[in-house]
Amino acid sequence: MSRSNSVHYPAYLSETLGTLILLAVVVGSGIMGEQLAQGNTAVALLANSLATGCALFVLITLFGPLSGAHFNPVVTLLSAWQKQLTWSQVPGYLIGQVVGALLGVALAHGMFDLALIQQSTHIRTGGPQWLGEITATAGLILVIQCIATRGKLELTAACVALYITAAYWFTSSTSFANPAVTLARSFTNTFAGIAPSDVAGFVMAQLIGAGVGGGLARCLHGGKQ
Amino acid sequence: MSRSNSVHYPAYLSETLGTLILLAVVVGSGIMGEQLAQGNTAVALLANSLATGCALFVLITLFGPLSGAHFNPVVTLLSAWQKQLTWSQVPGYLIGQVVGALLGVALAHGMFDLALIQQSTHIRTGGPQWLGEITATAGLILVIQCIATRGKLELTAACVALYITAAYWFTSSTSFANPAVTLARSFTNTFAGIAPSDVAGFVMAQLIGAGVGGGLARCLHGGKQ
Amino acid sequence: MSRSNSVHYPAYLSETLGTLILLAVVVGSGIMGEQLAQGNTAVALLANSLATGCALFVLITLFGPLSGAHFNPVVTLLSAWQKQLTWSQVPGYLIGQVVGALLGVALAHGMFDLALIQQSTHIRTGGPQWLGEITATAGLILVIQCIATRGKLELTAACVALYITAAYWFTSSTSFANPAVTLARSFTNTFAGIAPSDVAGFVMAQLIGAGVGGGLARCLHGGKQ
Amino acid sequence: MSRSNSVHYPAYLSETLGTLILLAVVVGSGIMGEQLAQGNTAVALLANSLATGCALFVLITLFGPLSGAHFNPVVTLLSAWQKQLTWSQVPGYLIGQVVGALLGVALAHGMFDLALIQQSTHIRTGGPQWLGEITATAGLILVIQCIATRGKLELTAACVALYITAAYWFTSSTSFANPAVTLARSFTNTFAGIAPSDVAGFVMAQLIGAGVGGGLARCLHGGKQ
Repeated sequence: MSRSNSVHYPAYLSETLGTLILLAVVVGSGIMGEQLAQGNTAVALLANSLATGCALFVLITLFGPLSGAHFNPVVTLLSAWQKQLTWSQVPGYLIGQVVGALLGVALAHGMFDLALIQQSTHIRTGGPQWLGEITATAGLILVIQCIATRGKLELTAACVALYITAAYWFTSSTSFANPAVTLARSFTNTFAGIAPSDVAGFVMAQLIGAGVGGGLARCLHGGKQ
Repeated sequence: MSRSNSVHYPAYLSETLGTLILLAVVVGSGIMGEQLAQGNTAVALLANSLATGCALFVLITLFGPLSGAHFNPVVTLLSAWQKQLTWSQVPGYLIGQVVGALLGVALAHGMFDLALIQQSTHIRTGGPQWLGEITATAGLILVIQCIATRGKLELTAACVALYITAAYWFTSSTSFANPAVTLARSFTNTFAGIAPSDVAGFVMAQLIGAGVGGGLARCLHGGKQ
Repeated sequence: MSRSNSVHYPAYLSETLGTLILLAVVVGSGIMGEQLAQGNTAVALLANSLATGCALFVLITLFGPLSGAHFNPVVTLLSAWQKQLTWSQVPGYLIGQVVGALLGVALAHGMFDLALIQQSTHIRTGGPQWLGEITATAGLILVIQCIATRGKLELTAACVALYITAAYWFTSSTSFANPAVTLARSFTNTFAGIAPSDVAGFVMAQLIGAGVGGGLARCLHGGKQ
Repeated sequence: MSRSNSVHYPAYLSETLGTLILLAVVVGSGIMGEQLAQGNTAVALLANSLATGCALFVLITLFGPLSGAHFNPVVTLLSAWQKQLTWSQVPGYLIGQVVGALLGVALAHGMFDLALIQQSTHIRTGGPQWLGEITATAGLILVIQCIATRGKLELTAACVALYITAAYWFTSSTSFANPAVTLARSFTNTFAGIAPSDVAGFVMAQLIGAGVGGGLARCLHGGKQ
């Protein structure tokens, strides 16, 4: 989805707003789920994963025509690498994603009457969880590389949404798979949080996962992609 | 979806019947969920949100060709403002929505052997919940402005249904996002109710949210819409 | 979906097999849900309603081209009334539905190591539940009359499946909406059962509901249908 | 989906990788569900069945164009029997499926910090559960024979995913319906496991079920297929 160099502000706004809403959903539905589930964390995670999946379909459908609906620095960097985006657009995308993600966390906190900025104490670290993030991100990139390229927006939206819903459950890390989301989630001490000291490990795992996913996509298409 | 001025009764009936069924679903599934969930409110809200989402897809698909499937005064007013509906049709739409919503609440009560008209004692007020309603309504209007305009009825139905399912969870107010629905829900003292004194605050927040959503939609489309 | 008079056996087999699988799903998932849910009936009904909705989409997609995928005497009678089916085919359809429904209940019992034929003791009666059945059936007929007529099989399948998933929750009767299903469910003393003495009341309510739904569909289409 | 004899390695890799991810989802979401559900097995199975259904839609959509997305020896053998696949390709498919399934189980264990290879002690045997597997596999083959042949990839993906989600609940065996999956699940002593001594019975039931499903598909299409 290469775009002309003229005016990119709608694209940057699209990434900012889309990532903002995504984080409001991830963090907000986690708070609501935990508050209502009487300690049954599986029920809270059901709510959290279903709300995120539902929202992702809508957000990708809505913002896809405006910016490609990345909401994820890994996807933006890969798009630039594959010349679907110019490198000059990358900073605008990344800044939009990070700013949007932080605002989304603050919005969720505001809606639930919590301090707008917090520091998470939720420990998420260690080899198994990093393997979870590698797997989650590899799968996400594989889905995007093999399905988004077919050019059917709704199909891409459905596959990404359903993949993430499943990945909440089958990876031990509940599938962050996104450095901007990971950073922003370190600013909430609620269900979806991650301790700031654990962010770097997750992001490293996500970058490795993106490489694995990109490599697998190339193998599957016999080097044609 | 501008319509000729001749006979609008099918459109008014469509709005009445659609809003009636919508409220029967929202209130009825709330009653059923609460009765069966043994106090685990998260399970009740899962049922409530899934039933509402499922029904919304069907209702928008069914009534969309007849009246645009607004079921919501905010949507009707915005449609008139944008000249997709004539102002002379607006009263018929609004009356249909309010009457339908009230009948739907009564139908739900009748099915569950409760007094047909009740007064809710469920307090829903305060800045955080109003921020929830602003967010919920802004998102809904953004979805409608950016996706319904693509002219694919099923896609619109899917996006609105999935958005509302998510918004039950990520907003602290459980996303009313609709003045007719809010008013009608003050007449049920069950899971979905809202105290009459809290209706005005929610409706104000919804109107502000509609403005925010409409403004964001314009920004995203670079003023072209 | 009028069909030539030559060989109707594939259609009858389609109705039999489709209704058989439908009942195996309704009864089987009810048993599984109740056995695992530790008395939290809302969780059991979530499983029951989701399994039924998922299966309905598949069954209507699969059997639709063969017989219209009625699985429901009310739908068959209405189709004959509207000349979409010849009256001479009706007995084959009805017999197939009833036989299939009974076999489906027996299959579910067999899979869960229960007596193949049982007598339900589950009381389901009284005005509110009958109003539930009238509502459930009216809604189902409205969906079929207004959406199936658009000739998009997958859309019909999606709408019927989603409607029934919602109707499990918003009607006090959990939405039987089908005389063959109601009769067959009197032969299981498990989660989905209905006492034999209560079958007639439900069937009467379903017939009234079908009339209401058919009438509403006519009103909505201005008598054109 | 007959393919030329030239280079089949992308197809074999596709079967390997698809089955790997499928097993990681089935086993991983089972572990997560059980760990979080506080002993409410219905909630764990809800998570397990929803995650599997979501993933199946994505995997069939992703790998369908590369290998047909069988992930299942029963489907591969039937495809060869019906000349949609050459017999010379069958060993590559079967080896890929078994190797992928085993690697997927190990990946799930690695993500959750468990021994990579385990021996299940989960007893799953006896006539009722075998009847469950016969039913589950017959239904799956019926879906594939009647719907995949329409050549709409997304529709096939949706129907298989929804069928399996339902079949987790309506069959007493929770619907393995796949010999490679059954074998691999004997190597995990977690929620999804099956004792090694019970594998043969399940596989026999699956082969019988495949025959039943294939026979029913022929009857429905009047021998034309």
